[in-house]
Amino acid sequence: MSNTVSSPLYAAIDLGSNSFHMLIVRHVDGSVQTMAKIKRKVRLANGLDKNNQLSQEAMQRGWDCLSLFAERLQDIPPTNIRIVGTAALRSATNVETFLSKANQILGHSIEVISGEEEAATIYKGVAHTSGGLGRRLVVDIGGASTELIIGKEFEAQALVSLSMGCVTWLDNYFHDRQLTQSNFDTAILAAKATLEPILTKYSQLGWDVCVGASGTVQALQEIMLAQGMDEIITLSKLKRLKKQAMMASHLEELEIDGLTLERALVFPSGLSILIAIFESLNIESMTLAGGALREGLAYEMIGEMRQSNIRQRTVSSVQKRYQVDTLYAEQVANVALELLEQCGGLSWVPETQAAFLLQSAAELHEIGLSIDFKKGGEHGAYLLQHLDLPGFTRAQKHFLAELTRRYREQLTSLPEQHALSSQSSKRLLRLLRLSVLLTHRREAILQPEFSIHSEGDILTLTIDPTWLQKNPLTQAELEIEANRQSDIGWPLVIAE
Amino acid sequence: MSNTVSSPLYAAIDLGSNSFHMLIVRHVDGSVQTMAKIKRKVRLANGLDKNNQLSQEAMQRGWDCLSLFAERLQDIPPTNIRIVGTAALRSATNVETFLSKANQILGHSIEVISGEEEAATIYKGVAHTSGGLGRRLVVDIGGASTELIIGKEFEAQALVSLSMGCVTWLDNYFHDRQLTQSNFDTAILAAKATLEPILTKYSQLGWDVCVGASGTVQALQEIMLAQGMDEIITLSKLKRLKKQAMMASHLEELEIDGLTLERALVFPSGLSILIAIFESLNIESMTLAGGALREGLAYEMIGEMRQSNIRQRTVSSVQKRYQVDTLYAEQVANVALELLEQCGGLSWVPETQAAFLLQSAAELHEIGLSIDFKKGGEHGAYLLQHLDLPGFTRAQKHFLAELTRRYREQLTSLPEQHALSSQSSKRLLRLLRLSVLLTHRREAILQPEFSIHSEGDILTLTIDPTWLQKNPLTQAELEIEANRQSDIGWPLVIAE
Repeated sequence: MSNTVSSPLYAAIDLGSNSFHMLIVRHVDGSVQTMAKIKRKVRLANGLDKNNQLSQEAMQRGWDCLSLFAERLQDIPPTNIRIVGTAALRSATNVETFLSKANQILGHSIEVISGEEEAATIYKGVAHTSGGLGRRLVVDIGGASTELIIGKEFEAQALVSLSMGCVTWLDNYFHDRQLTQSNFDTAILAAKATLEPILTKYSQLGWDVCVGASGTVQALQEIMLAQGMDEIITLSKLKRLKKQAMMASHLEELEIDGLTLERALVFPSGLSILIAIFESLNIESMTLAGGALREGLAYEMIGEMRQSNIRQRTVSSVQKRYQVDTLYAEQVANVALELLEQCGGLSWVPETQAAFLLQSAAELHEIGLSIDFKKGGEHGAYLLQHLDLPGFTRAQKHFLAELTRRYREQLTSLPEQHALSSQSSKRLLRLLRLSVLLTHRREAILQPEFSIHSEGDILTLTIDPTWLQKNPLTQAELEIEANRQSDIGWPLVIAE
Repeated sequence: MSNTVSSPLYAAIDLGSNSFHMLIVRHVDGSVQTMAKIKRKVRLANGLDKNNQLSQEAMQRGWDCLSLFAERLQDIPPTNIRIVGTAALRSATNVETFLSKANQILGHSIEVISGEEEAATIYKGVAHTSGGLGRRLVVDIGGASTELIIGKEFEAQALVSLSMGCVTWLDNYFHDRQLTQSNFDTAILAAKATLEPILTKYSQLGWDVCVGASGTVQALQEIMLAQGMDEIITLSKLKRLKKQAMMASHLEELEIDGLTLERALVFPSGLSILIAIFESLNIESMTLAGGALREGLAYEMIGEMRQSNIRQRTVSSVQKRYQVDTLYAEQVANVALELLEQCGGLSWVPETQAAFLLQSAAELHEIGLSIDFKKGGEHGAYLLQHLDLPGFTRAQKHFLAELTRRYREQLTSLPEQHALSSQSSKRLLRLLRLSVLLTHRREAILQPEFSIHSEGDILTLTIDPTWLQKNPLTQAELEIEANRQSDIGWPLVIAE
């Protein structure tokens, strides 16, 4: 039983205008696993004077942080390290002074990348970690720059880095720390003016999904979730947050559920920029990306991770890591999708992502068995809730977890879902449970012929009677299941 | 990323005197993973008349149960199936009538095994799933027979199957359902008489550890735990349970915390037999086995699982399943054991199992990273709490989980432990945390020279100052750690 797993580490370091970040990962079974994350608030942009000279103090804060990072870098093969500087370093006139000492401390050289390169790398980070098909608009609001990219699969088709960020907008438009209508108005207008040059091109290109990266968007989503909203960011929700913010007259008094102290300072400026982006580009809704610049650096170093269907890559990797019987999982997924089709497909469950979510749940429902057979559903739910699942949003992860928790035995009603309507969620749960029962005999050839008929929420499942006679255990369990579903108000009839 | 895991299934079926059990497992990465467990209370022994004829009703109950099992067996390769009958079938004079129809239903033949073969298989099931070094006494109290085996590693050296069991003792000595002193006395005396012939031989052979298998011992342990006792079964605890039982005059009134209805009926008879065994063989303490007859059948079919150190096999398998960086884990374990040695070894932490537990914790502490870097310790604790860890007792699993929960960051004091004294538990936690910090640089060659000195609970850790200068991140974290340990009353000094 000798066994050695010691896959090489990769480090991606991002010297941002507000914070320096180090991400250390390794590549295991088709997944990128985070081994460490270190962040230091260096506030480099804060140390730029009006001539764009970095102050000695700001540089010293940067060097101190880098000597901490340097310690960790020594264990990592040099070819597995990438260190990039962004907006603040791009604009510093004395950047060479900073870099020459920084390179010496790190023992590696820092690349100050252009805004375009930053945008392209952010796009790759998003593409590697976020789901959604079709053309994608990516928005990343940093401390001193904002990147907007349109792309498809792994390629950016339009990209731009604009000189506006939540730190610079704070300094320029909320300098008095007043959360007034007029400050917000000015900040939003200024952002719109900055966006103006790209509007025609971006609107013409168009997009199918919109994804937000970076801390600002993450903070906004956290606030929304803390306040019981769902995870989809919309203009009306952003305006509601703005109204809430304006109830505190002064930035230091700002109290919004879910807003951490650290984020509070740049919250009004970031919010203004995002509102401007939504209005100027007519964005309907935005979801949070799974990663951005650092993830882009890391995935690109690792290579061999490009698979256009990120969610399918994630499912395969999780199946492998938790020793799922994939042949069986495929049976369950096939039966589940067949049931969905027979029930009426999109006319019965209208959300387009429903079929993929049902398929993913079927492919992953047994992962908890790797922990223990007892409470396998519970263990699976725990894993799905806590695993990093690139390509799935938070609400989708939650939905997969709740389905997995209930794939067998006792049936309880679902808590409120944000990935799908409650009616659709319930319907998919019912089909998952039936598909698990119908594949009780784990080999396809031993499974019964069936047909299902839906009339609203009334399901009638018809199964070959000869098969049922030969499989009394399944027959008994299907009868129990009919009672379970019917008992909580979801009528199910088993017909022969 | 195509990936197919569909390892073959194995089934072990045990037609016991009280219940029929089916266990379905598969072999994954050095672990035996339970895929299904089905149990039906067939009460075969109950259907034996005084001429040892099985009644038609009892046989019908058995056949009905087997037709349920048969459905599942069809998916399993015939060579991966073993079905055995025990005491009730051994003694039934019309066993052929039962078997010929049963074999037909199953499509596989049932082996009615001798008491000796049953004992030998139980021993293997225990050896494959339980820790402890040296010579082992195994006690398995069934419905109609009790097996006692002495063995070492995987070989039984003495074995016997006695005609006493918790169902037969219930019928013989608690027939009136009265929980009186005199019923208990008679039951215990009768059990002692049954044990008499083996006492000399077994006492001469001797043993280092004693392990109890089967439902009776498990039920006793569950009661003890529900009442806040630790998991070690001793004569004084058994006598306390007997006293409690006698407070209900009648079996139907029996109410003991932690006693399930199902077990209640055979609880006084099983308890009597166990008290007799403890007294006759002068057993000091007993722990619960991780498996018995069915596990013996399954592990023997799977083969290639024989490794004399079950706990090491378990650790290796868990490391592999959760993608632990084993080279690094070994560094941490080496440093932890070195720290323990320098602190005084057994004179500082007196329990002999301490070093192995510390080593196991060091080898497993990173398993939670496979779920997520965030709250990695919490995730690791969840896994260790719920995983089946052959070779580790329940209290030892709990201890590993609590150490893993605290291997880094915030330090909180440990909840009460049953695997080690609270002083020893605390000391091992301190060493684990230090060894994680000392191996911050993940490669051995980059790690510092250190020495540690203990004076009771006061620890002084001395580290090469040149190394510390070059590794400011570790230096800072060691200082934080000194404060954390000292703050909760565990003085730690970092000296240069």
